[in-house]
Amino acid sequence: MYNNKIPRATILRLSMYYRNLQRLLRKGINVISSADLAHYTNVNPAQLRKDLSYFGKFGVRGVGYKVDQLAMSIQGILGLSKQWQMVLIGANQIGQALLQYGQFEKRGYNFVSIFDFDDASIGRTIGGIPVRPITILEDTIKKSGIELGVIAMSNEKAQDAANMLVKAGIKGILNFSFGRIDVPDNIDIRNVDFAIFLDTMTYAISQRNETKNYKISEITSDFDIKNKFDVPLTSMPLPCAV
Amino acid sequence: MYNNKIPRATILRLSMYYRNLQRLLRKGINVISSADLAHYTNVNPAQLRKDLSYFGKFGVRGVGYKVDQLAMSIQGILGLSKQWQMVLIGANQIGQALLQYGQFEKRGYNFVSIFDFDDASIGRTIGGIPVRPITILEDTIKKSGIELGVIAMSNEKAQDAANMLVKAGIKGILNFSFGRIDVPDNIDIRNVDFAIFLDTMTYAISQRNETKNYKISEITSDFDIKNKFDVPLTSMPLPCAV
Repeated sequence: MYNNKIPRATILRLSMYYRNLQRLLRKGINVISSADLAHYTNVNPAQLRKDLSYFGKFGVRGVGYKVDQLAMSIQGILGLSKQWQMVLIGANQIGQALLQYGQFEKRGYNFVSIFDFDDASIGRTIGGIPVRPITILEDTIKKSGIELGVIAMSNEKAQDAANMLVKAGIKGILNFSFGRIDVPDNIDIRNVDFAIFLDTMTYAISQRNETKNYKISEITSDFDIKNKFDVPLTSMPLPCAV
Repeated sequence: MYNNKIPRATILRLSMYYRNLQRLLRKGINVISSADLAHYTNVNPAQLRKDLSYFGKFGVRGVGYKVDQLAMSIQGILGLSKQWQMVLIGANQIGQALLQYGQFEKRGYNFVSIFDFDDASIGRTIGGIPVRPITILEDTIKKSGIELGVIAMSNEKAQDAANMLVKAGIKGILNFSFGRIDVPDNIDIRNVDFAIFLDTMTYAISQRNETKNYKISEITSDFDIKNKFDVPLTSMPLPCAV
Protein backbone atom coordinates (compact mmCIF):
# COMPACT_ATOMS: atom_id res chain seq x y z
CA MET A 1 0.00 0.00 0.00
CA TYR A 2 1.39 3.35 -0.98
CA ASN A 3 1.89 6.17 1.42
CA ASN A 4 -1.08 8.46 1.01
CA LYS A 5 0.86 11.67 0.40
CA ILE A 6 2.88 11.43 -2.79
CA PRO A 7 4.36 14.75 -3.90
CA ARG A 8 3.49 15.53 -7.47
CA ALA A 9 7.13 16.14 -8.26
CA THR A 10 7.94 12.61 -7.13
CA ILE A 11 5.84 11.20 -9.97
CA LEU A 12 7.69 13.35 -12.44
CA ARG A 13 11.03 12.22 -11.08
CA LEU A 14 9.92 8.58 -11.17
CA SER A 15 9.36 9.03 -14.88
CA MET A 16 12.86 10.44 -15.22
CA TYR A 17 14.42 7.61 -13.18
CA TYR A 18 12.54 5.16 -15.34
CA ARG A 19 13.83 6.65 -18.54
CA ASN A 20 17.39 6.59 -17.24
CA LEU A 21 17.06 3.02 -15.98
CA GLN A 22 15.96 2.00 -19.47
CA ARG A 23 19.03 3.70 -20.88
CA LEU A 24 21.26 1.89 -18.41
CA LEU A 25 19.69 -1.42 -19.39
CA ARG A 26 20.37 -0.68 -23.04
CA LYS A 27 23.99 -0.05 -22.10
CA GLY A 28 24.14 -3.43 -20.35
CA ILE A 29 24.42 -1.97 -16.85
CA ASN A 30 22.66 -4.25 -14.37
CA VAL A 31 23.35 -2.69 -10.99
CA ILE A 32 23.58 0.97 -10.05
CA SER A 33 24.13 2.76 -6.77
CA SER A 34 21.61 5.32 -5.62
CA ALA A 35 24.39 7.92 -5.84
CA ASP A 36 25.03 7.10 -9.49
CA LEU A 37 21.39 6.91 -10.50
CA ALA A 38 20.76 10.19 -8.69
CA HIS A 39 23.73 11.80 -10.39
CA TYR A 40 22.66 10.49 -13.75
CA THR A 41 19.23 12.02 -13.23
CA ASN A 42 20.66 15.21 -11.74
CA VAL A 43 18.85 14.88 -8.43
CA ASN A 44 20.48 14.41 -5.07
CA PRO A 45 20.69 10.85 -3.69
CA ALA A 46 18.56 11.66 -0.65
CA GLN A 47 15.80 12.83 -2.97
CA LEU A 48 15.97 9.63 -5.00
CA ARG A 49 15.76 7.49 -1.88
CA LYS A 50 12.90 9.55 -0.52
CA ASP A 51 10.99 9.34 -3.80
CA LEU A 52 11.28 5.57 -3.89
CA SER A 53 10.47 5.22 -0.20
CA TYR A 54 6.88 6.26 -0.89
CA PHE A 55 6.39 3.04 -2.79
CA GLY A 56 8.29 0.46 -0.76
CA LYS A 57 11.81 -0.80 -0.14
CA PHE A 58 14.14 -0.88 -3.11
CA GLY A 59 17.81 -1.75 -3.47
CA VAL A 60 20.38 -3.18 -1.12
CA ARG A 61 22.41 -0.99 1.19
CA GLY A 62 25.99 -0.74 0.03
CA VAL A 63 25.20 -2.38 -3.30
CA GLY A 64 22.51 -0.39 -5.04
CA TYR A 65 19.58 -1.17 -7.24
CA LYS A 66 19.12 -3.96 -9.72
CA VAL A 67 18.40 -1.91 -12.78
CA ASP A 68 15.83 -4.24 -14.32
CA GLN A 69 13.96 -4.76 -11.07
CA LEU A 70 13.76 -1.08 -10.24
CA ALA A 71 12.71 -0.26 -13.80
CA MET A 72 9.92 -2.83 -13.59
CA SER A 73 8.77 -1.55 -10.23
CA ILE A 74 8.57 2.02 -11.46
CA GLN A 75 6.90 0.84 -14.63
CA GLY A 76 4.18 -0.67 -12.49
CA ILE A 77 3.84 2.42 -10.31
CA LEU A 78 3.48 4.70 -13.33
CA GLY A 79 0.92 2.46 -14.97
CA LEU A 80 3.24 1.62 -17.84
CA SER A 81 3.06 -2.14 -17.47
CA LYS A 82 0.22 -2.03 -19.96
CA GLN A 83 0.13 -0.73 -23.49
CA TRP A 84 -1.88 2.46 -23.85
CA GLN A 85 -3.94 3.17 -26.94
CA MET A 86 -4.14 6.72 -28.24
CA VAL A 87 -6.16 8.50 -30.88
CA LEU A 88 -4.78 11.50 -32.69
CA ILE A 89 -7.13 14.25 -33.77
CA GLY A 90 -5.60 16.40 -36.46
CA ALA A 91 -3.76 15.03 -39.47
CA ASN A 92 -1.77 18.23 -39.78
CA GLN A 93 1.91 19.09 -39.55
CA ILE A 94 2.09 18.71 -35.77
CA GLY A 95 0.00 15.57 -35.87
CA GLN A 96 2.31 14.02 -38.41
CA ALA A 97 5.37 15.00 -36.41
CA LEU A 98 3.88 13.34 -33.33
CA LEU A 99 3.13 10.18 -35.27
CA GLN A 100 6.72 10.03 -36.39
CA TYR A 101 8.12 11.13 -33.05
CA GLY A 102 9.18 7.54 -32.37
CA GLN A 103 9.35 7.79 -28.58
CA PHE A 104 5.74 7.09 -27.74
CA GLU A 105 5.72 3.48 -28.86
CA LYS A 106 8.91 2.72 -26.97
CA ARG A 107 7.13 3.70 -23.79
CA GLY A 108 3.94 1.82 -24.45
CA TYR A 109 1.90 4.65 -26.00
CA ASN A 110 0.45 3.57 -29.31
CA PHE A 111 -1.45 5.64 -31.81
CA VAL A 112 -4.18 3.37 -33.13
CA SER A 113 -6.44 5.83 -34.95
CA ILE A 114 -6.25 9.24 -36.58
CA PHE A 115 -9.25 11.51 -37.02
CA ASP A 116 -9.72 14.80 -38.78
CA PHE A 117 -12.51 17.30 -39.30
CA ASP A 118 -11.30 18.07 -42.80
CA ASP A 119 -12.71 15.89 -45.57
CA ALA A 120 -9.59 16.54 -47.63
CA SER A 121 -7.51 14.58 -45.12
CA ILE A 122 -9.83 11.58 -44.86
CA GLY A 123 -8.47 8.44 -46.43
CA ARG A 124 -4.84 9.54 -46.33
CA THR A 125 -2.50 7.27 -44.44
CA ILE A 126 0.08 8.54 -41.95
CA GLY A 127 2.56 6.10 -40.51
CA GLY A 128 0.41 3.30 -41.83
CA ILE A 129 -2.72 4.56 -40.06
CA PRO A 130 -5.63 5.80 -42.16
CA VAL A 131 -7.15 9.19 -41.36
CA ARG A 132 -10.83 8.75 -40.59
CA PRO A 133 -13.73 11.19 -40.33
CA ILE A 134 -14.31 12.74 -36.92
CA THR A 135 -17.92 11.63 -37.14
CA ILE A 136 -16.96 8.07 -36.26
CA LEU A 137 -14.63 9.04 -33.39
CA GLU A 138 -17.08 8.32 -30.59
CA ASP A 139 -18.07 4.96 -31.94
CA THR A 140 -14.46 3.93 -32.54
CA ILE A 141 -13.31 4.86 -29.05
CA LYS A 142 -16.24 3.20 -27.35
CA LYS A 143 -15.69 -0.02 -29.24
CA SER A 144 -11.93 -0.17 -28.82
CA GLY A 145 -11.47 1.01 -25.24
CA ILE A 146 -8.95 3.68 -26.24
CA GLU A 147 -8.08 5.75 -23.15
CA LEU A 148 -5.89 8.62 -24.39
CA GLY A 149 -6.51 11.36 -26.93
CA VAL A 150 -3.99 13.70 -28.50
CA ILE A 151 -5.37 16.94 -29.93
CA ALA A 152 -3.32 18.59 -32.66
CA MET A 153 -6.10 20.81 -33.99
CA SER A 154 -6.28 24.54 -34.33
CA ASN A 155 -7.90 26.55 -31.54
CA GLU A 156 -11.32 26.73 -33.05
CA LYS A 157 -11.82 23.01 -33.36
CA ALA A 158 -9.87 21.93 -30.29
CA GLN A 159 -12.75 22.33 -27.84
CA ASP A 160 -15.04 20.42 -30.20
CA ALA A 161 -12.46 17.68 -30.41
CA ALA A 162 -12.14 17.58 -26.62
CA ASN A 163 -15.91 17.43 -26.19
CA MET A 164 -16.08 14.47 -28.54
CA LEU A 165 -13.26 12.69 -26.75
CA VAL A 166 -14.93 13.23 -23.39
CA LYS A 167 -18.29 12.05 -24.69
CA ALA A 168 -16.61 8.94 -26.05
CA GLY A 169 -15.23 8.12 -22.60
CA ILE A 170 -11.57 9.05 -23.02
CA LYS A 171 -9.60 9.38 -19.76
CA GLY A 172 -6.72 11.65 -20.64
CA ILE A 173 -5.99 14.33 -23.23
CA LEU A 174 -2.65 15.68 -24.42
CA ASN A 175 -3.46 19.03 -26.00
CA PHE A 176 -1.20 20.67 -28.57
CA SER A 177 -3.67 23.40 -29.50
CA PHE A 178 -3.22 26.86 -28.02
CA GLY A 179 -6.65 27.75 -26.83
CA ARG A 180 -8.07 27.00 -23.45
CA ILE A 181 -9.87 23.67 -23.42
CA ASP A 182 -12.36 22.92 -20.71
CA VAL A 183 -12.97 19.35 -19.68
CA PRO A 184 -14.76 17.78 -16.71
CA ASP A 185 -12.72 17.26 -13.54
CA ASN A 186 -12.49 13.54 -14.07
CA ILE A 187 -10.52 13.98 -17.30
CA ASP A 188 -6.78 14.47 -17.12
CA ILE A 189 -5.51 17.08 -19.52
CA ARG A 190 -1.97 18.25 -20.25
CA ASN A 191 -1.56 21.36 -22.36
CA VAL A 192 1.54 21.82 -24.46
CA ASP A 193 2.85 25.33 -25.01
CA PHE A 194 6.34 25.65 -26.39
CA ALA A 195 6.28 29.42 -26.10
CA ILE A 196 5.83 29.40 -22.32
CA PHE A 197 8.71 26.98 -22.31
CA LEU A 198 10.85 29.54 -24.05
CA ASP A 199 9.64 32.29 -21.71
CA THR A 200 11.30 30.66 -18.72
CA MET A 201 14.50 30.38 -20.71
CA THR A 202 14.55 33.95 -21.94
CA TYR A 203 13.81 35.16 -18.42
CA ALA A 204 16.91 33.38 -17.19
CA ILE A 205 18.98 34.67 -20.10
CA SER A 206 17.72 38.23 -19.65
CA GLN A 207 18.61 38.18 -15.99
CA ARG A 208 22.08 36.94 -16.78
CA ASN A 209 22.53 39.51 -19.52
CA GLU A 210 21.63 42.26 -17.11
CA THR A 211 23.58 40.65 -14.25
CA LYS A 212 20.83 41.54 -11.85
CA ASN A 213 21.60 40.93 -8.25
CA TYR A 214 19.20 38.17 -7.39
CA LYS A 215 18.67 34.52 -7.97
CA ILE A 216 15.74 32.19 -8.28
CA SER A 217 15.23 30.28 -5.07
CA GLU A 218 14.21 26.70 -4.62
CA ILE A 219 10.54 26.03 -4.96
CA THR A 220 9.06 26.36 -1.53
CA SER A 221 5.91 25.19 0.12
CA ASP A 222 4.05 28.21 -1.15
CA PHE A 223 4.05 26.48 -4.50
CA ASP A 224 0.36 25.83 -4.61
CA ILE A 225 -0.76 26.32 -8.16
CA LYS A 226 -3.61 24.04 -8.94
CA ASN A 227 -3.72 24.69 -12.63
CA LYS A 228 -5.24 22.21 -14.82
CA PHE A 229 -5.59 24.48 -17.79
CA ASP A 230 -3.21 26.89 -19.40
CA VAL A 231 -0.22 25.24 -17.86
CA PRO A 232 3.07 25.22 -19.63
CA LEU A 233 5.01 22.37 -20.99
CA THR A 234 8.32 22.96 -19.36
CA SER A 235 11.44 21.62 -17.89
CA MET A 236 10.78 20.93 -14.26
CA PRO A 237 12.33 22.34 -12.28
CA LEU A 238 13.65 25.39 -13.95
CA PRO A 239 17.36 25.88 -13.82
CA CYS A 240 18.30 28.81 -11.66
CA ALA A 241 19.08 32.06 -13.37
CA VAL A 242 22.72 32.43 -12.45
CA MET B 1 15.20 46.17 -7.72
CA TYR B 2 13.78 42.68 -7.49
CA ASN B 3 13.60 40.70 -4.32
CA ASN B 4 16.52 38.33 -4.42
CA LYS B 5 14.56 35.12 -3.85
CA ILE B 6 12.18 34.45 -6.71
CA PRO B 7 10.64 30.96 -6.66
CA ARG B 8 11.11 29.20 -9.94
CA ALA B 9 7.41 28.43 -10.09
CA THR B 10 6.68 32.15 -9.95
CA ILE B 11 8.42 32.65 -13.28
CA LEU B 12 6.36 29.91 -14.82
CA ARG B 13 3.16 31.44 -13.48
CA LEU B 14 4.20 34.88 -14.73
CA SER B 15 4.34 33.38 -18.19
CA MET B 16 0.87 31.99 -17.72
CA TYR B 17 -0.50 35.30 -16.41
CA TYR B 18 1.09 37.01 -19.38
CA ARG B 19 -0.53 34.68 -21.86
CA ASN B 20 -3.90 35.17 -20.23
CA LEU B 21 -3.50 38.94 -20.11
CA GLN B 22 -2.83 38.90 -23.82
CA ARG B 23 -6.01 36.91 -24.35
CA LEU B 24 -7.97 39.40 -22.26
CA LEU B 25 -6.57 42.26 -24.34
CA ARG B 26 -7.64 40.52 -27.52
CA LYS B 27 -11.13 40.25 -26.05
CA GLY B 28 -11.12 43.98 -25.33
CA ILE B 29 -11.01 43.60 -21.55
CA ASN B 30 -9.01 46.47 -20.04
CA VAL B 31 -9.29 45.95 -16.29
CA ILE B 32 -9.37 42.71 -14.34
CA SER B 33 -9.53 41.97 -10.63
CA SER B 34 -6.85 39.80 -9.07
CA ALA B 35 -9.59 37.29 -8.23
CA ASP B 36 -10.65 37.05 -11.87
CA LEU B 37 -7.14 36.86 -13.29
CA ALA B 38 -6.27 34.24 -10.70
CA HIS B 39 -9.39 32.26 -11.52
CA TYR B 40 -8.71 32.53 -15.22
CA THR B 41 -5.21 31.15 -14.66
CA ASN B 42 -6.41 28.55 -12.16
CA VAL B 43 -4.27 29.80 -9.31
CA ASN B 44 -5.51 31.23 -6.07
CA PRO B 45 -5.63 35.03 -5.74
CA ALA B 46 -3.14 35.08 -2.88
CA GLN B 47 -0.65 33.25 -5.05
CA LEU B 48 -1.11 35.75 -7.87
CA ARG B 49 -0.58 38.69 -5.55
CA LYS B 50 2.44 37.05 -3.98
CA ASP B 51 3.98 36.27 -7.39
CA LEU B 52 3.61 39.87 -8.51
CA SER B 53 4.83 41.26 -5.18
CA TYR B 54 8.35 39.99 -5.96
CA PHE B 55 8.55 42.54 -8.74
CA GLY B 56 6.86 45.61 -7.32
CA LYS B 57 3.42 47.04 -6.72
CA PHE B 58 0.76 46.35 -9.30
CA GLY B 59 -2.92 47.13 -9.47
CA VAL B 60 -5.24 49.23 -7.39
CA ARG B 61 -6.97 47.82 -4.33
CA GLY B 62 -10.67 47.32 -4.97
CA VAL B 63 -10.26 47.92 -8.68
CA GLY B 64 -7.77 45.47 -10.06
CA TYR B 65 -5.10 45.51 -12.71
CA LYS B 66 -4.97 47.48 -15.91
CA VAL B 67 -4.57 44.62 -18.33
CA ASP B 68 -2.22 46.36 -20.74
CA GLN B 69 0.00 47.76 -18.00
CA LEU B 70 0.34 44.47 -16.19
CA ALA B 71 1.00 42.65 -19.45
CA MET B 72 3.75 45.11 -20.31
CA SER B 73 5.30 44.84 -16.86
CA ILE B 74 5.41 41.05 -17.04
CA GLN B 75 6.70 41.25 -20.57
CA GLY B 76 9.61 43.27 -19.28
CA ILE B 77 10.25 40.92 -16.36
CA LEU B 78 10.30 37.88 -18.62
CA GLY B 79 12.62 39.51 -21.10
CA LEU B 80 9.98 39.52 -23.81
CA SER B 81 10.14 43.22 -24.57
CA LYS B 82 12.68 42.38 -27.21
CA GLN B 83 12.41 40.11 -30.22
CA TRP B 84 14.43 36.91 -29.87
CA GLN B 85 16.12 35.31 -32.83
CA MET B 86 16.26 31.54 -33.06
CA VAL B 87 17.99 29.03 -35.29
CA LEU B 88 16.45 25.66 -35.99
CA ILE B 89 18.73 22.69 -36.49
CA GLY B 90 16.94 19.88 -38.27
CA ALA B 91 14.75 20.34 -41.32
CA ASN B 92 12.79 17.21 -40.48
CA GLN B 93 9.18 16.52 -39.60
CA ILE B 94 9.42 17.97 -36.09
CA GLY B 95 11.42 20.93 -37.32
CA GLN B 96 8.81 21.70 -39.93
CA ALA B 97 6.01 21.40 -37.40
CA LEU B 98 7.81 23.85 -35.12
CA LEU B 99 8.30 26.31 -37.95
CA GLN B 100 4.60 26.19 -38.66
CA TYR B 101 3.60 26.13 -35.00
CA GLY B 102 2.58 29.77 -35.28
CA GLN B 103 2.83 30.64 -31.59
CA PHE B 104 6.50 31.49 -31.38
CA GLU B 105 6.33 34.63 -33.51
CA LYS B 106 3.35 35.93 -31.56
CA ARG B 107 5.50 35.89 -28.46
CA GLY B 108 8.57 37.44 -29.98
CA TYR B 109 10.47 34.27 -30.87
CA ASN B 110 11.52 34.32 -34.48
CA PHE B 111 13.16 31.60 -36.49
CA VAL B 112 15.69 33.33 -38.69
CA SER B 113 17.77 30.42 -39.95
CA ILE B 114 17.47 26.69 -40.51
CA PHE B 115 20.44 24.34 -40.61
CA ASP B 116 20.76 20.67 -41.38
CA PHE B 117 23.53 18.08 -41.46
CA ASP B 118 21.95 16.36 -44.44
CA ASP B 119 23.01 17.62 -47.86
CA ALA B 120 19.69 16.46 -49.29
CA SER B 121 17.87 19.09 -47.24
CA ILE B 122 20.14 21.99 -48.11
CA GLY B 123 18.57 24.56 -50.36
CA ARG B 124 15.00 23.61 -49.54
CA THR B 125 12.83 26.35 -48.14
CA ILE B 126 10.57 25.90 -45.12
CA GLY B 127 8.22 28.69 -44.19
CA GLY B 128 10.16 30.97 -46.49
CA ILE B 129 13.49 30.22 -44.79
CA PRO B 130 16.17 28.36 -46.74
CA VAL B 131 17.82 25.32 -45.17
CA ARG B 132 21.56 25.91 -44.97
CA PRO B 133 24.52 23.62 -44.34
CA ILE B 134 25.48 23.10 -40.70
CA THR B 135 29.05 24.04 -41.62
CA ILE B 136 28.13 27.72 -41.72
CA LEU B 137 26.15 27.65 -38.45
CA GLU B 138 28.86 29.12 -36.25
CA ASP B 139 29.65 31.91 -38.61
CA THR B 140 25.98 32.78 -39.09
CA ILE B 141 25.24 32.92 -35.38
CA LYS B 142 28.31 34.96 -34.55
CA LYS B 143 27.50 37.50 -37.24
CA SER B 144 23.81 37.84 -36.45
CA GLY B 145 23.77 37.72 -32.66
CA ILE B 146 21.21 34.92 -32.57
CA GLU B 147 20.71 33.86 -28.95
CA LEU B 148 18.44 30.80 -29.04
CA GLY B 149 18.84 27.44 -30.75
CA VAL B 150 16.19 24.77 -31.29
CA ILE B 151 17.44 21.23 -31.86
CA ALA B 152 15.13 18.90 -33.75
CA MET B 153 17.78 16.35 -34.71
CA SER B 154 17.98 12.66 -33.97
CA ASN B 155 19.93 11.52 -30.92
CA GLU B 156 23.19 10.85 -32.67
CA LYS B 157 23.57 14.32 -34.09
CA ALA B 158 21.96 16.27 -31.26
CA GLN B 159 25.09 16.54 -29.13
CA ASP B 160 27.08 17.66 -32.18
CA ALA B 161 24.45 20.27 -32.88
CA ALA B 162 24.55 21.46 -29.27
CA ASN B 163 28.34 21.67 -29.32
CA MET B 164 28.20 23.82 -32.42
CA LEU B 165 25.56 26.09 -30.92
CA VAL B 166 27.60 26.52 -27.75
CA LYS B 167 30.77 27.20 -29.71
CA ALA B 168 28.92 29.83 -31.71
CA GLY B 169 27.91 31.62 -28.52
CA ILE B 170 24.24 30.67 -28.25
CA LYS B 171 22.65 31.32 -24.83
CA GLY B 172 19.72 28.94 -24.68
CA ILE B 173 18.75 25.65 -26.30
CA LEU B 174 15.33 24.08 -26.68
CA ASN B 175 16.01 20.40 -27.32
CA PHE B 176 13.51 18.13 -29.04
CA SER B 177 15.91 15.21 -29.42
CA PHE B 178 15.66 12.32 -26.98
CA GLY B 179 19.23 11.76 -25.97
CA ARG B 180 20.99 13.42 -23.12
CA ILE B 181 22.73 16.59 -24.24
CA ASP B 182 25.52 18.03 -22.14
CA VAL B 183 26.17 21.74 -22.25
CA PRO B 184 28.25 24.08 -20.07
CA ASP B 185 26.57 25.51 -16.98
CA ASN B 186 26.22 28.94 -18.53
CA ILE B 187 23.92 27.62 -21.27
CA ASP B 188 20.22 27.26 -20.54
CA ILE B 189 18.74 24.09 -21.95
CA ARG B 190 15.17 22.81 -21.92
CA ASN B 191 14.57 19.24 -22.99
CA VAL B 192 11.26 18.25 -24.49
CA ASP B 193 9.96 14.76 -23.86
CA PHE B 194 6.34 14.11 -24.68
CA ALA B 195 6.49 10.57 -23.33
CA ILE B 196 7.36 11.68 -19.80
CA PHE B 197 4.48 14.06 -20.17
CA LEU B 198 2.19 11.13 -20.85
CA ASP B 199 3.68 9.16 -17.95
CA THR B 200 2.34 11.60 -15.40
CA MET B 201 -1.07 11.35 -17.02
CA THR B 202 -1.19 7.57 -17.14
CA TYR B 203 -0.03 7.44 -13.54
CA ALA B 204 -3.02 9.53 -12.54
CA ILE B 205 -5.37 7.49 -14.69
CA SER B 206 -4.01 4.20 -13.38
CA GLN B 207 -4.49 5.33 -9.82
CA ARG B 208 -8.03 6.33 -10.54
CA ASN B 209 -8.74 3.09 -12.35
CA GLU B 210 -7.52 1.12 -9.36
CA THR B 211 -9.15 3.53 -6.90
CA LYS B 212 -6.14 3.31 -4.65
CA ASN B 213 -6.52 4.91 -1.30
CA TYR B 214 -4.11 7.78 -1.54
CA LYS B 215 -3.70 11.09 -3.19
CA ILE B 216 -0.88 13.21 -4.49
CA SER B 217 -0.03 15.96 -2.06
CA GLU B 218 0.96 19.49 -2.76
CA ILE B 219 4.57 19.97 -3.69
CA THR B 220 6.43 20.62 -0.49
CA SER B 221 9.71 22.18 0.36
CA ASP B 222 11.48 18.87 -0.13
CA PHE B 223 11.10 19.55 -3.82
CA ASP B 224 14.73 19.98 -4.51
CA ILE B 225 15.48 18.50 -7.86
CA LYS B 226 18.17 20.41 -9.60
CA ASN B 227 17.88 18.73 -12.94
CA LYS B 228 19.09 20.51 -15.90
CA PHE B 229 19.17 17.51 -18.15
CA ASP B 230 16.68 14.75 -18.72
CA VAL B 231 13.89 16.81 -17.39
CA PRO B 232 10.41 16.39 -18.68
CA LEU B 233 8.29 18.75 -20.58
CA THR B 234 5.19 18.72 -18.50
CA SER B 235 2.22 20.47 -17.13
CA MET B 236 3.30 22.16 -13.99
CA PRO B 237 2.02 21.40 -11.53
CA LEU B 238 0.52 18.02 -12.13
CA PRO B 239 -3.15 17.72 -11.46
CA CYS B 240 -3.79 15.50 -8.48
CA ALA B 241 -4.65 11.90 -9.12
CA VAL B 242 -8.25 11.64 -7.91
